[in-house]
Amino acid sequence: MTQSTENPPLGKLGRPLPRPEVLRMHAYIPGEQPKNPKLVKLNTNENSYPPSPRVLEALHALGDHAVGRYPDPMCTRLRESIAGSLGVEADQIIMGNGSDEVLKMAIEAYVDPEDSVGYLWPTYSLYPVFLDKIGAHEVRFPWSPDRDSQEYALAQAPEDLKLVFITNPNPPFGLEVTLEAIRRFAETRLSTLVVVDEAYIAYGGESAIALVREDYPNVIVTRSFSKSHSLAGMRAGFAVGPKSVIEMFYRVKDSYNLNAATQAATLASWEDASYTETIVAKICATRERVAVELTALGFNVPPSRGNFLFARHPEVPEIFAKLRENNVLVRYFDTPELRDGLRISIGTDQEMDVFLQVLKQIVLK
Amino acid sequence: MTQSTENPPLGKLGRPLPRPEVLRMHAYIPGEQPKNPKLVKLNTNENSYPPSPRVLEALHALGDHAVGRYPDPMCTRLRESIAGSLGVEADQIIMGNGSDEVLKMAIEAYVDPEDSVGYLWPTYSLYPVFLDKIGAHEVRFPWSPDRDSQEYALAQAPEDLKLVFITNPNPPFGLEVTLEAIRRFAETRLSTLVVVDEAYIAYGGESAIALVREDYPNVIVTRSFSKSHSLAGMRAGFAVGPKSVIEMFYRVKDSYNLNAATQAATLASWEDASYTETIVAKICATRERVAVELTALGFNVPPSRGNFLFARHPEVPEIFAKLRENNVLVRYFDTPELRDGLRISIGTDQEMDVFLQVLKQIVLK
Repeated sequence: MTQSTENPPLGKLGRPLPRPEVLRMHAYIPGEQPKNPKLVKLNTNENSYPPSPRVLEALHALGDHAVGRYPDPMCTRLRESIAGSLGVEADQIIMGNGSDEVLKMAIEAYVDPEDSVGYLWPTYSLYPVFLDKIGAHEVRFPWSPDRDSQEYALAQAPEDLKLVFITNPNPPFGLEVTLEAIRRFAETRLSTLVVVDEAYIAYGGESAIALVREDYPNVIVTRSFSKSHSLAGMRAGFAVGPKSVIEMFYRVKDSYNLNAATQAATLASWEDASYTETIVAKICATRERVAVELTALGFNVPPSRGNFLFARHPEVPEIFAKLRENNVLVRYFDTPELRDGLRISIGTDQEMDVFLQVLKQIVLK
Repeated sequence: MTQSTENPPLGKLGRPLPRPEVLRMHAYIPGEQPKNPKLVKLNTNENSYPPSPRVLEALHALGDHAVGRYPDPMCTRLRESIAGSLGVEADQIIMGNGSDEVLKMAIEAYVDPEDSVGYLWPTYSLYPVFLDKIGAHEVRFPWSPDRDSQEYALAQAPEDLKLVFITNPNPPFGLEVTLEAIRRFAETRLSTLVVVDEAYIAYGGESAIALVREDYPNVIVTRSFSKSHSLAGMRAGFAVGPKSVIEMFYRVKDSYNLNAATQAATLASWEDASYTETIVAKICATRERVAVELTALGFNVPPSRGNFLFARHPEVPEIFAKLRENNVLVRYFDTPELRDGLRISIGTDQEMDVFLQVLKQIVLK
């Protein structure tokens, strides 16, 4: 500092004040990413199978020009390829740095601080973080697999919501929300932007892209490459919806939001659809086998359509701790609705065998 | 749609309304990225030299695990390496998807819609896009190389600004803002967050990181890997500042904002500092040579400290068009303050020789 030592430091005289919403907020806490290589990591719903071999080929073919020049801000080739497969037009699609970024664009383009945003609860815990950031009102549609259906809870939702997130299948239970329920919801709330988050749809459930193809003016579907395409490390996702809505997303998008490496990897992965289908089918088969074994071990396991199971048991906190002591990491949410269960990502058969073996030693002790 | 054909389409009955700020806003228009391989591309201030050879090595070494698992959300190794070189602590640094993302974090963490944000004008044209998005007030400190200095314009700025961007060196003229002027500005406006955007600092000027090291409570410096490190395609940048401010940036950051490929490429590039110094020195030497030649051709060329020159000439729009016809692309801004000049990125000596040869044919016709 230039002032003499008798003066107080500048920080005592004043400092910029953050926005009150930011002062109050807590950052979203992602699942742990520990470095221990012995760990069987079943806590963040990644895909334990490697990505399509074409992905590393594409990354290893990157040259100085791709790295040194700005990437295509519109992700043209990628969007054209995706649009062709989905039967929509390329300008109905916007790419994001993970589907998290397109979910955020929905908020940035449509939600003002005084607006209300709703979702079934429990669900993806990032949505409340978005709302806290701008100070919008949260409306939860409470629901549990022991009580009403998600469809019933959805139909009871208030009518004056600016935006609704419907996660399908919906973590952490993984239950499907039927397309008919989403259709009815969208038709009776035409002023609400209905954002159907299909991060896990490859593993089960019927896609609401059908509604986008039918020109619903208020339905947006988001997809992720992290779970089904084994690309969590590359950060890619997209939204597909009416052109008029996607145009608003473009207005709030960062200029160059998807780098050259991600564009190349994502295109290679998308175009190797048969590879994705094969690993997804394997994971679904493993999920069904693990669900049967967990039920036999005394867990209550709702029928998940995701790449994870939510397994409930009276001794859950202890089981979580003991799994961890034995190098098996699953996800435990210490909230009133969820503290009786564990969310277990479905890895390879080998990983799940280790998990089940350790679990049996804990539960059948 | 499920309703009968006699009914109007759902879109006629209602649709979600975007935020009024978004309806009014225009998206930021990045410089053109044409595909023509014959083009000498001097319009977006990229680096014509290849990145450090270590960058492609790092990218080509990426394996299934890096690609398939979530990346380190905190970019720990990268931040530790940068912090070590800069003489600050790792938690004084936050990485962004390009410096654009950390600039946006400053707005998201500190600026409310009723707040005012200022900057010297002309400058980086992304700042007004940020303000339009949230509806904050813009205060321009007008200035031109024909009139006052940037330092004078800065000292005249109002005192009640929530945030000020100081771009140093400041495009499109590329003039330096002295560290002493920034220091005085920060000391007399302790409630203003002073964001010093040093995207071009490698090419000239004195860094305000000195003020961060001296514990100024209101000074943040942002850096980019696009210009000096030839990594425009990978999207990386960072902010360095007081821990208390950087913590607020973390609260508004997307969970996994920097993918695995970008983290690997950026670390490799940062640690090959002598490579960067060599290409930066070459570009600075080329800049000085081109400035002399442009002056000899009748252009008025303010002394730029960036990797670009702003060259003014009475026949500029025609010169721009003719350069383009001859496969040389520079940047022309059709605004009242700038339409008498061209912003010319400094490429390799070979590229600049082609540019000068074509330019001579146009100007000396």
